[in-house]
Amino acid sequence: MMDTPLTLVSLIERAEKYFSKKEVISRTHTGIQHFTYEEIGKRTRALASALKKLGVEKGDRVGTFAWNHHRHLEAYFAAPSMGAVLHTINIRLSPEHLTYIINHAEDKVLLIDIDLLPLIERVKDELTSVKAFIVMSDEKELPESTLSPLYSYEQLVSDGDENFEYATDIDENDPAGMCYTSATTGKPKGVVYTHRGIFLHSMALSMADTAAISESDRVMPVVPMFHANAWGMPFVSTMLGATQVLPGPMMTPQIIAEMIDKYDVTISAGVPTIWLGLLQELEKGIYDTSHLRAILCGGSAAPKSMIRSYETDFNIPFIHAYGMTETTPIVTLARLKSYQTDLSEEERLDIRSRQGTVVPGLDIKVVDENGDEVEADGEAMGELLIRGPWIADEYYKDDRTKDAFKDGWLYTGDVVTIDNEGSIKIVDRMGDLIKSGGEWISSVDLENTLMAHPAIFEAAVIAVPDPKWQERPVACVVLKPDKLATEAEVLKFLEPQFAKWWLPDKVVFMKEIPKTSVGKFLKRDLREIVNK
Amino acid sequence: MMDTPLTLVSLIERAEKYFSKKEVISRTHTGIQHFTYEEIGKRTRALASALKKLGVEKGDRVGTFAWNHHRHLEAYFAAPSMGAVLHTINIRLSPEHLTYIINHAEDKVLLIDIDLLPLIERVKDELTSVKAFIVMSDEKELPESTLSPLYSYEQLVSDGDENFEYATDIDENDPAGMCYTSATTGKPKGVVYTHRGIFLHSMALSMADTAAISESDRVMPVVPMFHANAWGMPFVSTMLGATQVLPGPMMTPQIIAEMIDKYDVTISAGVPTIWLGLLQELEKGIYDTSHLRAILCGGSAAPKSMIRSYETDFNIPFIHAYGMTETTPIVTLARLKSYQTDLSEEERLDIRSRQGTVVPGLDIKVVDENGDEVEADGEAMGELLIRGPWIADEYYKDDRTKDAFKDGWLYTGDVVTIDNEGSIKIVDRMGDLIKSGGEWISSVDLENTLMAHPAIFEAAVIAVPDPKWQERPVACVVLKPDKLATEAEVLKFLEPQFAKWWLPDKVVFMKEIPKTSVGKFLKRDLREIVNK
Repeated sequence: MMDTPLTLVSLIERAEKYFSKKEVISRTHTGIQHFTYEEIGKRTRALASALKKLGVEKGDRVGTFAWNHHRHLEAYFAAPSMGAVLHTINIRLSPEHLTYIINHAEDKVLLIDIDLLPLIERVKDELTSVKAFIVMSDEKELPESTLSPLYSYEQLVSDGDENFEYATDIDENDPAGMCYTSATTGKPKGVVYTHRGIFLHSMALSMADTAAISESDRVMPVVPMFHANAWGMPFVSTMLGATQVLPGPMMTPQIIAEMIDKYDVTISAGVPTIWLGLLQELEKGIYDTSHLRAILCGGSAAPKSMIRSYETDFNIPFIHAYGMTETTPIVTLARLKSYQTDLSEEERLDIRSRQGTVVPGLDIKVVDENGDEVEADGEAMGELLIRGPWIADEYYKDDRTKDAFKDGWLYTGDVVTIDNEGSIKIVDRMGDLIKSGGEWISSVDLENTLMAHPAIFEAAVIAVPDPKWQERPVACVVLKPDKLATEAEVLKFLEPQFAKWWLPDKVVFMKEIPKTSVGKFLKRDLREIVNK
Repeated sequence: MMDTPLTLVSLIERAEKYFSKKEVISRTHTGIQHFTYEEIGKRTRALASALKKLGVEKGDRVGTFAWNHHRHLEAYFAAPSMGAVLHTINIRLSPEHLTYIINHAEDKVLLIDIDLLPLIERVKDELTSVKAFIVMSDEKELPESTLSPLYSYEQLVSDGDENFEYATDIDENDPAGMCYTSATTGKPKGVVYTHRGIFLHSMALSMADTAAISESDRVMPVVPMFHANAWGMPFVSTMLGATQVLPGPMMTPQIIAEMIDKYDVTISAGVPTIWLGLLQELEKGIYDTSHLRAILCGGSAAPKSMIRSYETDFNIPFIHAYGMTETTPIVTLARLKSYQTDLSEEERLDIRSRQGTVVPGLDIKVVDENGDEVEADGEAMGELLIRGPWIADEYYKDDRTKDAFKDGWLYTGDVVTIDNEGSIKIVDRMGDLIKSGGEWISSVDLENTLMAHPAIFEAAVIAVPDPKWQERPVACVVLKPDKLATEAEVLKFLEPQFAKWWLPDKVVFMKEIPKTSVGKFLKRDLREIVNK
């Protein structure tokens, strides 16, 4: 067979050749803009030519610090297609971590959204590798800024070569992108994505039993483009010529709902907290979501009650998935097998509330502390290990590589059970499991049940030290606006569903649960707050 | 990213692990048999262990000479998964070509269907590399045969190791399979498939805009498993745990219709002549085909009238595709783009009668005799060139490699037009185009229109030498049973649709059109018959 490499160049060129009339709809600071793939294609080539003129060479890192919009999409293809590496930077990092990752990745150029300039200006004196800053805005005029040299994105694109020829010497194992993932302790850890990994991941996302993304889809990634490639949505959508709806800066549940309605979105993707927020917004009953064929949810476990609400109250199919920055990210999806469709509604919901089965191309196994595979009985807990062509094999220039990558497997740090259908269910993070009297209590199970309580908006369960039992669970609960509940009521709600010793010792009511930059519960901070 | 290779081992192991309860339904000489993937998995390992015991080593070729059934499926995975190469041999080859390809491939072991034994017995004294013959039959007892040493497939499987461990040292670029394609003149040419090529092709077949094959499908390949991997159906079906319905020896339109009905087939694949035959059978009106979501048709151009009949008369969606042995084989599929769904029924049918657009992962271009790309206007004709990771890059140990593989492209020998949507339409084979008075006439266009005539079952148009015009078209026509038509009537039917000089000089009525071993018109023979 021919040794044609699997590269991102072929994805953007496919959109240019075969889907030139299809659209990318982009929300920016000034409003909504429409572009055809023909226009996106030319602008992307022009951007690549500009980067080259600025001195970006093969293998150089190009950082982006931006929301979900067409310019970010152009950067997604311009940098890798000229042989450089797209480094998407989480806009919610602390100044210390921000400086660390830009210097650690040695970003040569930074593309920055105009409203995010102050965050980079604040750390600019600490940056050691950046040779040029590019401000992404709808105007060609440069804003006032302390960054230097500063270029206008639109000016560069307008001066650039829209017929620029992409690199032809890209090996499929060359790096195409990178993203840092926050660690529980210490600095963020860098993950490098190859052309091959992203290409295969794009194919996988279009497979019928995965997300089945097709040309006819209108895809809106709510998951940020600065996080794990927005779950690969921009790549697969471009490959297939799907319409992209990019929701721009400062997304709110209202903006998300409006865009789903107005632009006939067929599939969207994001973390549970996003969908929890949207659910409240949809309850207003003023949005048309009939064209929405799937909500893809991952990042952390979605409560079963939320899945039920989407499907029963709003007739929106909900696909529970699992992945992480290290895995490009899709690893598993919860779908019914054909012989499961006759089960009762509750049984089907149980299956679809799990994280699901591994997608074609990857391998998983679940091991106990001795490294032996646990029983596939849906009961035995173990750490999830993953292997495959879109799984990282190291942290970029980082000693912590040896803790997570062993014997050809990624050790995820996620504790799961696996059933006899091969479907996994996240029980907890390794550090979040609660060890009480020698037995394990799953914080995730308690949380998901708590979130089914009619008065509860979100809930996180953490371990507090206990002299007698070693650790005991404490529930941290945020109530819905205008709803009330007492500790006794909450515990009573849990009682029928758990063994007595699983019940939290205490219910702490709070206004908000601290979250990581990608919307996951920050249990470390929560433990500090509660233990104070 | 991890350098885990893309190999066929992962496909069969996936079926074993996650779809162990799903079924393979196999029609053999004695009747219908049902197997779970758990059973298929064990039998496949046992077969691999037996092959090893017979001396098959990494890279050795294992030939199969068989119909579509579960044993052939087991061989599809056993040989490649132990590091050997599956060589599927066309059962319709002449003794001379049969001997040639077995010796040329240096097959070490041959697996032969019991009813096909005589065909191998006839050439056995000419075979130079075969060390063992295995007869595939439902019984363990060996039949009378002059082949030696002869083993029983079922005995080998029953004595084999159902826990056999597959090879772990397979590189994704290692050969997994091979198939010879008949040449217009001379010996058949060998095509070698790699693990990587077949793996990627399997992913492509499951993509939403391709064949969207899923776990819930019940897949029946009518295209023979001895031809171009049965278009990859056995591989992708196993990868996804789809139910496989293998229609066995001596398929007739009646058997095909009965199996589609009885086993709730959702997707089937084959060449136009098969579907032409089935159409007549369906007209009996006694079959339930409501579950059939797609008929995949390729190998040669399907007449528009046939596509219309399937869709309007029987409500069976028809997907026109294009590929060849050298391309694993899927290259293009004709699907509507989302903005084409509002076109008139006739316009949509026109689009879907074309060969369609290239699937993700491959590149095509259409070039004139100077090698320049032709206009994408749907009018200009040129040769189709293909490139990509599941396209062959040579003929196995064959000097004719240099004629078909140039500058990294496969020169298909197919003349096509390409429109501004990137959709190709086969006009003719390079040698079958009719050059009349310095202009080209497409035999395929004439044929497809002829086959829309209510009395015509099939039609082939060939060039005959002409002293004045260089070449002139002659139509060879097979009438439907109990239907009549005259030459004048046939020409009158064509008249409104073609320029006058396109009309055939003569209509020859025949009982049957000679076909190749894979059901394509044998125009070379036809020319000899007509020119006699």
